[in-house]
Amino acid sequence: MTSRIEAALTAATRSAQDGAPPKFASALHYAVFPGGARVRPRLCLAVAGACGDDAPELSDAMCASIELLHCASLVHDDLPCFDDAPLRRGKPTVHRVFGEPLAVLVGDALIVLAFESLARASASVPSRMAPLIALLGRAAGAPHGLCAGQAWESETGAPLQEYHQAKTGSLFAAATMGGALAAGADPGPWSVVGDRLGEAYQVADDLLDALSEPHEVGKPTLRDAALARINAVTLLGVDGAVARLRQRVAEAVESIPACPGAGPLRALVMQTADRLVPKGLKQSAA
Amino acid sequence: MTSRIEAALTAATRSAQDGAPPKFASALHYAVFPGGARVRPRLCLAVAGACGDDAPELSDAMCASIELLHCASLVHDDLPCFDDAPLRRGKPTVHRVFGEPLAVLVGDALIVLAFESLARASASVPSRMAPLIALLGRAAGAPHGLCAGQAWESETGAPLQEYHQAKTGSLFAAATMGGALAAGADPGPWSVVGDRLGEAYQVADDLLDALSEPHEVGKPTLRDAALARINAVTLLGVDGAVARLRQRVAEAVESIPACPGAGPLRALVMQTADRLVPKGLKQSAA
Repeated sequence: MTSRIEAALTAATRSAQDGAPPKFASALHYAVFPGGARVRPRLCLAVAGACGDDAPELSDAMCASIELLHCASLVHDDLPCFDDAPLRRGKPTVHRVFGEPLAVLVGDALIVLAFESLARASASVPSRMAPLIALLGRAAGAPHGLCAGQAWESETGAPLQEYHQAKTGSLFAAATMGGALAAGADPGPWSVVGDRLGEAYQVADDLLDALSEPHEVGKPTLRDAALARINAVTLLGVDGAVARLRQRVAEAVESIPACPGAGPLRALVMQTADRLVPKGLKQSAA
Repeated sequence: MTSRIEAALTAATRSAQDGAPPKFASALHYAVFPGGARVRPRLCLAVAGACGDDAPELSDAMCASIELLHCASLVHDDLPCFDDAPLRRGKPTVHRVFGEPLAVLVGDALIVLAFESLARASASVPSRMAPLIALLGRAAGAPHGLCAGQAWESETGAPLQEYHQAKTGSLFAAATMGGALAAGADPGPWSVVGDRLGEAYQVADDLLDALSEPHEVGKPTLRDAALARINAVTLLGVDGAVARLRQRVAEAVESIPACPGAGPLRALVMQTADRLVPKGLKQSAA
């Protein structure tokens, strides 16, 4: 699975690099490689596999596009006007290495590339193109996608559920629904699976931010407290947050619809989810 | 034509606003309305009309998507890390009114919206969706689109032709080719028309920057000199730049391929082009 994801990301990124201004081309590559856990594309391919994966070039493109959008959001979220983060994935952030102008442009270009490369791959199964692009758009933009989620941070009293759903849940839902769609299955029943996993992941991220050291996670921590952002740990406490995380994963697993590969997918989700609980808490809140 | 363009832009923008964080929704609207001359969507609809415009909902969507990408690029280009512009279209820039974080997010969301709303409209003529989205992607991203064009400003010794082609020509070519494609015509022959008009427009913009007062153009002037950017006026002189502008418009008009409405389109292009030459120069360099 790893090699499929990296190959799809490499092909997409290269198509934007060849002939581009040299520094910009380097910054594009730097923003995508090496990756983090590639959680969203893994989930997308796992669902596609569970649904039969009858058009692997399409599921490859969809999982890559989801990861490209995720990378774009990281590059922009790290900018000085947002988190002003010095580190991401254990190395200096894009704007620290290449400057703010190229960081803005790299994020923009990755968003474009996500749609462009998906449309290119869909040529082989044109009937699936419109719903896949609509799904990607809903997850990335407004009113309920990534951009809207980040924009909730500019509002006072933003609703936690809506904020998390847009900022994190939307791309997870696109991963599960997109995996199903790319394999020709009905995406509807996969929405809840993605939503719940997204929520679990966001709670895990809040726990990491509150409880980890920067060297453990490869990025700054205690950012939510510093920026007075809403966070599951401040709202629910550590034990409450861990309980919610486990509850959401259980709901996700229960929501997996009947499909040829439901059993292995359930096992994979539980295994992935187990890695989400920060190490020191596994005993205390199990 | 104006009412079709504004209606298409309104429909697209509203679809992203309803349910979005309130300040962000306001900023989205502010970035798109009121518009400038809407040169690109006009050109797109004019070409669609010349080719028969048999799917007006599709040409509406394409012209709106091109303008949304243009608006996104203006919002990001005006950011402090680029031009740090206080004014755009005669009013304070998005980041001056809504802050930098929302300005970054509005640009991102407009890019997403361009693809999302085009895919939505293409449902009625699915066979035209893939080439339209590919066209939009090529014009917006890298290696030869808007993002790459802007990124050339981070390189020393960038080639003027390549830089202008990517920064301005690409979206003009998407406008002419997209108008043809949306109407079911072969887009190939329309590429040169867009390229030449884009180049003419970029030279006109360089002339305005060098020769106008801010109140005349609704944005700061003398920016290229201040930022030591490559510019047709510094390279060719004023008379040389005006001559090149006229030459490019003539080439564009000559390149208009045979089509049902070629005559009226030629007249429209010449009329539009005539408005590009700054007022004080029309006599001296005619």
